[in-house]
Amino acid sequence: MTVDRDALQSVLDGRWAQVRDEIRAQMDELAFNPDPNLSTEEYRALTTENLHLLARTGRPRQGFDPAYGGGGDVGGVVTAFAMLGYGDLSLLVKAGVQWGLFGGAVQVLGTKRHHDEYLERIIDGELLGCFAMTETGHGSDVQHLRTTATYDPATREFEIHTPDEGARKDYIGNAARDGRMAVVFAQLVTQGRSHGVHALLVPIRDADGTPMPGVAIGDCGRKAGLNGVDNGRLTFDRVRVPREALLNRFGDVAEDGTYSSSIANETRRFFTMLGTLVRGRISVAGGAGTATQKALALAIRYGAVRRQFADPATGEEVVVLDYLVHQRKLLPALATTYALHFAQSDLVADMHDLQAPGTEGDEWRQRDLETRAAGIKAVATWHATTTIQTCREACGGAGYLAENLLPQLKADTDVFTTFEGDNTVLLQLVAKTLLSDYGRRVARLDLAGKARFAADLVADTVAERTGLRALLRRGDVRDRAYQRWLLVEREQHLLANAAQRMRRALAPGADQFGIFNGAQDHLLVAARAHVDRIVFDSFAAAVDRVADAGVRNLLSDVLRLYALAVIEGDRAFFIEHAYLTPARAKAVTQAVNGLCGRLRPHARTLVDGFGIPEAWLDCPLLDGEREAGAPVQALPAGEPTGLASVG
Amino acid sequence: MTVDRDALQSVLDGRWAQVRDEIRAQMDELAFNPDPNLSTEEYRALTTENLHLLARTGRPRQGFDPAYGGGGDVGGVVTAFAMLGYGDLSLLVKAGVQWGLFGGAVQVLGTKRHHDEYLERIIDGELLGCFAMTETGHGSDVQHLRTTATYDPATREFEIHTPDEGARKDYIGNAARDGRMAVVFAQLVTQGRSHGVHALLVPIRDADGTPMPGVAIGDCGRKAGLNGVDNGRLTFDRVRVPREALLNRFGDVAEDGTYSSSIANETRRFFTMLGTLVRGRISVAGGAGTATQKALALAIRYGAVRRQFADPATGEEVVVLDYLVHQRKLLPALATTYALHFAQSDLVADMHDLQAPGTEGDEWRQRDLETRAAGIKAVATWHATTTIQTCREACGGAGYLAENLLPQLKADTDVFTTFEGDNTVLLQLVAKTLLSDYGRRVARLDLAGKARFAADLVADTVAERTGLRALLRRGDVRDRAYQRWLLVEREQHLLANAAQRMRRALAPGADQFGIFNGAQDHLLVAARAHVDRIVFDSFAAAVDRVADAGVRNLLSDVLRLYALAVIEGDRAFFIEHAYLTPARAKAVTQAVNGLCGRLRPHARTLVDGFGIPEAWLDCPLLDGEREAGAPVQALPAGEPTGLASVG
Repeated sequence: MTVDRDALQSVLDGRWAQVRDEIRAQMDELAFNPDPNLSTEEYRALTTENLHLLARTGRPRQGFDPAYGGGGDVGGVVTAFAMLGYGDLSLLVKAGVQWGLFGGAVQVLGTKRHHDEYLERIIDGELLGCFAMTETGHGSDVQHLRTTATYDPATREFEIHTPDEGARKDYIGNAARDGRMAVVFAQLVTQGRSHGVHALLVPIRDADGTPMPGVAIGDCGRKAGLNGVDNGRLTFDRVRVPREALLNRFGDVAEDGTYSSSIANETRRFFTMLGTLVRGRISVAGGAGTATQKALALAIRYGAVRRQFADPATGEEVVVLDYLVHQRKLLPALATTYALHFAQSDLVADMHDLQAPGTEGDEWRQRDLETRAAGIKAVATWHATTTIQTCREACGGAGYLAENLLPQLKADTDVFTTFEGDNTVLLQLVAKTLLSDYGRRVARLDLAGKARFAADLVADTVAERTGLRALLRRGDVRDRAYQRWLLVEREQHLLANAAQRMRRALAPGADQFGIFNGAQDHLLVAARAHVDRIVFDSFAAAVDRVADAGVRNLLSDVLRLYALAVIEGDRAFFIEHAYLTPARAKAVTQAVNGLCGRLRPHARTLVDGFGIPEAWLDCPLLDGEREAGAPVQALPAGEPTGLASVG
Repeated sequence: MTVDRDALQSVLDGRWAQVRDEIRAQMDELAFNPDPNLSTEEYRALTTENLHLLARTGRPRQGFDPAYGGGGDVGGVVTAFAMLGYGDLSLLVKAGVQWGLFGGAVQVLGTKRHHDEYLERIIDGELLGCFAMTETGHGSDVQHLRTTATYDPATREFEIHTPDEGARKDYIGNAARDGRMAVVFAQLVTQGRSHGVHALLVPIRDADGTPMPGVAIGDCGRKAGLNGVDNGRLTFDRVRVPREALLNRFGDVAEDGTYSSSIANETRRFFTMLGTLVRGRISVAGGAGTATQKALALAIRYGAVRRQFADPATGEEVVVLDYLVHQRKLLPALATTYALHFAQSDLVADMHDLQAPGTEGDEWRQRDLETRAAGIKAVATWHATTTIQTCREACGGAGYLAENLLPQLKADTDVFTTFEGDNTVLLQLVAKTLLSDYGRRVARLDLAGKARFAADLVADTVAERTGLRALLRRGDVRDRAYQRWLLVEREQHLLANAAQRMRRALAPGADQFGIFNGAQDHLLVAARAHVDRIVFDSFAAAVDRVADAGVRNLLSDVLRLYALAVIEGDRAFFIEHAYLTPARAKAVTQAVNGLCGRLRPHARTLVDGFGIPEAWLDCPLLDGEREAGAPVQALPAGEPTGLASVG
């Protein structure tokens, strides 16, 4: 079976294929793979320069409202953003801060007065800005930020103030060097009452770059990675801004100080504001995806030419990717990367269809989008961290050298697991939404339905205790329907159990915190199971859409490997709850091994399918490809040695 | 229960407590936690300076032969080396290259002529050198290095030559900047015959630092971490060195070119030479341990004062280490770190008793030491990589800033998993040794024994199929004897199975490579199970030796958590093979959660027990400790929000 690389790439490129091709072509102008010896200041300067080059391509403009010269192509912009992950992740993050977070906040939280005054200058990169939400003391729990914006009707101004050290804005991109303004999130206080967190546009530096009076700017300094981004700290000492600085789409203060909002409930208002910013989270998942693809392309291509240890029968040194343990390191990770790619594509498309200018908002679809974005962001970024680490190790000492690109990928993506929402907290949010939906479904049942539901739970327990489940559902573990059955059962089982545990918290006088805390690990697993299942569904749907038979067959195997790797990873659950017999669980492991062997000949095609331009992968690690094909005969030795001599 | 921190530290400090205290005191002179903004050249210069300071403390001398002014305290030196992991890992590695690898090779592979001429200058740091083993094309399979050392009887010289690009010496510490000589490993050829890999002392630079004629020196440049170490590349173009340059303890060439060796078999000779270098591997495991301890000290102390999200019942923000998921991230990792610390201490003590000057070599004990060193190095360095990553994430954005030390720990230790033996290859070596020992035990059985053995195997399969095992062995999963039973059974089960699979390779015409390759993943798991069990035994023995009741009780819980975390992590195996019923497997998870809660109040004491001087942990991350104690009241909000409101 040969598979057409271009046909595969076009399946992966999907709806925004043209944007991807444009970025591939444009990328040459930008400095990808920057010199690892740059000092922090040099790297920051280079990244800013690249940001301006990027602005001039017109690409960032595509994401904004057509009323302000934008293209309204939200999906295209997020796709383009993710493509930067093949190049320099500092540029990706800096662009995300400028146009996604800062520009995005002005667009979606602001109103016409802000759009008219700022959008054009933000789009063309003339006005660089910050998204100042996180504080030293509040990262995940942003609803309890402590910076205040107190309205003074006498002067019609807000006074922005940092009440204590913990309320300092921290880790803020564009703050240490380049930003002129910041969207500052603060507790809005007017007429002696707090109305929760709102966003205001605050100048932080004058045109010359000098901090504005009352604004103290710190520098976060060197970081593990992303050193092209100037993260800094902002402290406000009773800084005054006009009333109009409030980004007032969801809440406003009249001249006399009267507060008004279309959303009465403060918490709901806050989460509505946050929800409009879902694009950032989706973009991070996308960047994690491309960075992972690049790491896999490097490690798999290296593994396909690197030889080590001789086969005792032939004396010829073996290509390391022919070793099962090497395949097991890289190929299930590659399959998962494929699965996440298609889940991400669906997410981007849904976001586009929901948020592009001219579309109507839909509260439920928006909520679903946010939940999926949270889950996929968490899973994709952890996958990136683990996989890039594995790729580094799979390349040995060569993988540790900066010239071979893996160290930068690893260092840059590391923070993805905790920024734009800490992954653990995100999965808890996913679990929370799943539980509410579950509760709502149960509540909607009529009396007969409730009885059936209770009977089902009993039957379920019996089925588990007797191992009946595994007997009832026979089939081949390599079968897609069977795999989906396992993934769905796990998701529903964990969710039902979690709901049962949580119900205890509703009892009067219950120790809510204790009950929640004791179930935390369970909730995370339930959320994870949910994400695994929706990722599977996205991938399966994508496979079914493929017209080219060769590509479809190949992707069917990749899908199988993804599903089986997930099932194998959690096989303890499936056996514990009698979804798999121990014998069948062993068959899962054998099937994973079998699929690794089947996909081995296509490994190179699979990474080529990502369509990463060769220039971006160019590094000494792949020098061996030039001489590949000519296996090196091992020097003769007295007896078979090393690894191959076991037994 | 209060536990005395000093009593705990003295248990951890163990046999070389005095050395540890000396290093704690001396460390102030060295630059620990170097400025992350140093350029590569500045960092290298600083590390070299620190190396000379270290030499002047007299500490490195302690490890060498008393005949050359050394202290013969092999265990003390390895302990001291590991302590540097609390400080700057570049210095640790550079010291390891100079005195462990380079100096060590001269001492153990050389003879009096080399000792007399070089040891003193190596010990005092006057002569800096390299350990040039790894080549670009051969990292793990060092027996098949391609550099040649060809003897020319006419001039009584060896000609050192790099025959092709792949034979270039690569990643060599001290090569890019400081080294004057290198111990070069090369295929020794004399009288037209190759005798396998031997080591020769080759000058690479003159006194001024200019490369010697015929020696081309490259620079590996920036790396993911350890940038204070000058890794480089060496290529030899028919470089001539006198016959006496051969480190001739295990093999020699007479003036006329006649080869002689006390070990006839080439492979055995090579592995004997390698075995003498086991100290390097043990030292890496030690450095991984201290680095992990430092990361845990930072993350746990931060987690014990960092608050996020309010408890809805009290409105008070909760200390993050009180969340079960946070405990599960850090406390089992802490328990494993303890376990590995005691396993490492045993390893160092056994090495000392076996290798210190004046001791008699013992082939079997040496072999056992090498196997344990390989296994513990693999497990300890993977544990370091995972745990330091977890610690980084547990500190959120703060953990990503260089000022908070975690990025450096992470970047520096990353390469530990693949240098001094790739971990995967090391575990394969462990499996190989276990299999040979197993085969030897079976072979020694008489006819009746063999019949019993076969019957046992059948009974075993029956027990598994009927779930009888779990019924036969009842007990509390929190019971130490029960835990050990599980760990031992797993080890033996996996080993017996692996042996059965490998036996097929002995059949005439068997596809040896195919059989070995197909069983590779199984072998790795068997090796891992073995290491887990010996680590458990070391820790258990250490707990039993503790006199202080408070410390003993606390460590008993830590041991339980370690064992249960291992069992939980592989609970699929235990259920699949009927060692645990599903119900009991769930009890394991509950017991892990319970132990996390029990150990939570002692978390700070447990990291304090490592005795890391405060100055080495000093970073902004821990600033919160000053204000700790005063919980921040969350701002009022309309309804319980965020995490705590699930349900």
